[in-house]
Amino acid sequence: MIRLTLAVDAMGGDFGPCVTVPAALQALTSHSQLFILLVGDPDIITPLLAKADSSLLGRLQVIPAESVIPSDAKPSQAVRNSRGSSMRMALELVKEGKAEACVSAGNTGALMGLAKLLLKPLDGIERPALMSVLPHQQQGKTVMLDLGANVGCDSAMLVQFAVMGAVMAEELLGIAQPRVALLNIGQEETKGLDTIREAAAILRESPQINYIGYLEGNDLLTGKTDVLVCDGFVGNVTLKTMEGVVRMFLSLLRASEEGKKRSWWLRLPGRWIQKRLTKRLGHLNPDQYNGACLLGLRGTVIKSHGAANQRAFAVAIEQAEQAVRRRIPMRIAARLDAVLARSDKA
Amino acid sequence: MIRLTLAVDAMGGDFGPCVTVPAALQALTSHSQLFILLVGDPDIITPLLAKADSSLLGRLQVIPAESVIPSDAKPSQAVRNSRGSSMRMALELVKEGKAEACVSAGNTGALMGLAKLLLKPLDGIERPALMSVLPHQQQGKTVMLDLGANVGCDSAMLVQFAVMGAVMAEELLGIAQPRVALLNIGQEETKGLDTIREAAAILRESPQINYIGYLEGNDLLTGKTDVLVCDGFVGNVTLKTMEGVVRMFLSLLRASEEGKKRSWWLRLPGRWIQKRLTKRLGHLNPDQYNGACLLGLRGTVIKSHGAANQRAFAVAIEQAEQAVRRRIPMRIAARLDAVLARSDKA
Repeated sequence: MIRLTLAVDAMGGDFGPCVTVPAALQALTSHSQLFILLVGDPDIITPLLAKADSSLLGRLQVIPAESVIPSDAKPSQAVRNSRGSSMRMALELVKEGKAEACVSAGNTGALMGLAKLLLKPLDGIERPALMSVLPHQQQGKTVMLDLGANVGCDSAMLVQFAVMGAVMAEELLGIAQPRVALLNIGQEETKGLDTIREAAAILRESPQINYIGYLEGNDLLTGKTDVLVCDGFVGNVTLKTMEGVVRMFLSLLRASEEGKKRSWWLRLPGRWIQKRLTKRLGHLNPDQYNGACLLGLRGTVIKSHGAANQRAFAVAIEQAEQAVRRRIPMRIAARLDAVLARSDKA
Repeated sequence: MIRLTLAVDAMGGDFGPCVTVPAALQALTSHSQLFILLVGDPDIITPLLAKADSSLLGRLQVIPAESVIPSDAKPSQAVRNSRGSSMRMALELVKEGKAEACVSAGNTGALMGLAKLLLKPLDGIERPALMSVLPHQQQGKTVMLDLGANVGCDSAMLVQFAVMGAVMAEELLGIAQPRVALLNIGQEETKGLDTIREAAAILRESPQINYIGYLEGNDLLTGKTDVLVCDGFVGNVTLKTMEGVVRMFLSLLRASEEGKKRSWWLRLPGRWIQKRLTKRLGHLNPDQYNGACLLGLRGTVIKSHGAANQRAFAVAIEQAEQAVRRRIPMRIAARLDAVLARSDKA
């Protein structure tokens, strides 16, 4: 494997450098060919590096940034006042070719706006979308987008998301002719919002897309589709709902093991059963798939949850590494060209 | 307790009379003061009553209906062609005072349209909303609305839903000054859709409502609010997502107990632990709270899940019985009058 450099917005997210710096060190430990540019306030970052192994520090550089985009800033305003901010500088490193991808846990709207401004969307894409690959109960995976980059979407955007999602399922999951569904409130054609019905009508007529119809929220984890498309508002609420419930169950499962008054004859088998359940459900743990890819750009940008812990943010960094190695933007561009060309002829 | 008559749309839902008839018999068994008018096709319903106890049949009457509103019908069309349908006739029985509430698992949009047409909204309410009382992990409950009656909502509607939700939390859950939150994709004021931000601005200025701000999807089950308000599209997708994940966990929990190769020394404690977990999580089982109340009308209408099984549909019938005994529409009307009067003065 060849050397690979990532720019990490060290200041973004609910916990800033307290999470991003140890997560960066963790990623460097796991990936010996990785170099990280940590963008942010050196006065906060440097002390957190004090105890790090010198071999890791050789693959890490702090890039000073003057400011941070607040997580509650209005995206349009944040973009206007972004000069010198850790997020913008991290993206500029990608634009200038000094880094191959950017990872940030900061303000989603600002990241979307700045990434679009600096890295530019691919031909045929109006607006990038946030995508994650979610595990489902059949031990397979589902590509879901948009997860929050665009709160309102028209039908053309939903169709573009469907194309990008299908490409991702083919490229990332190795699925030929991946099934594509739209998230809706019923399976009947007449159900839901106008934009969704219009997108469905276009997708039904697209021979390049294996469109299978509407899916409802309860099918999010059942593996009935390979690609699930929705607008960013619904996608964000749905994903967080699912994660909230999964976290609750996993924590109850752990708590059920921590009761102090358990009889001796229950202790050992209890632990065994808990381990088995955790193994069976653990792949659904949201921390294991943190990091949504901002698809549709001429560069790789990974958005981590704002509330990510160290482990989860390290996963987001690894996602960036994977996305770069798989040359996602180039592959999407190539496939989009082909699909759009065929659509034009059709 | 006094005698109470409910009209049940026997033909609605994915399974029609196969589910609604045994569920009605189950409800009659549990509630000795209950009378049920089963509206639908006698040729299908009567054979399903053949083996029923004669004491139950004395409290059950089949009301013949000529047609059924298809679950995939467009609501506007369904309402136009509704004459003689089981759903419309069940609602007419309420309108004519022959039944005190209507229960249906049929087409949500049609039920909403017909209920509004026949039973009329309360003063101050533009459109009724579907509400459920959801259990949360603190063993308390959260009132959530709209769950699918209105796919698009403006800010005024969201505010009306907040008022109705607050009344329900006071009346049903006995909570003084219930906390009211809007479902959104972030907690910062600038986040989300315009309609949500406008509703937030109105609610912040309403002294009658204990508005606490935005909540995200991951807080659906955490008990951080007593009332959660959203539009019907998002509410429907969110609720179904939550239910899907809960069902998956409960079924995995059961499956983990059904392995045949378990050693003898694991069998007993395994069963014990599974029982404990199921007890702790069982209250989250969607079947136990099936039945959403169509709030804001001059009558009581309960919408069951289309896919409800017998047990779940029986719960919806019991919800109707409870709603009637608590005189929900009257209480909402009284409180709305007070709140709206105070708002006008403010």
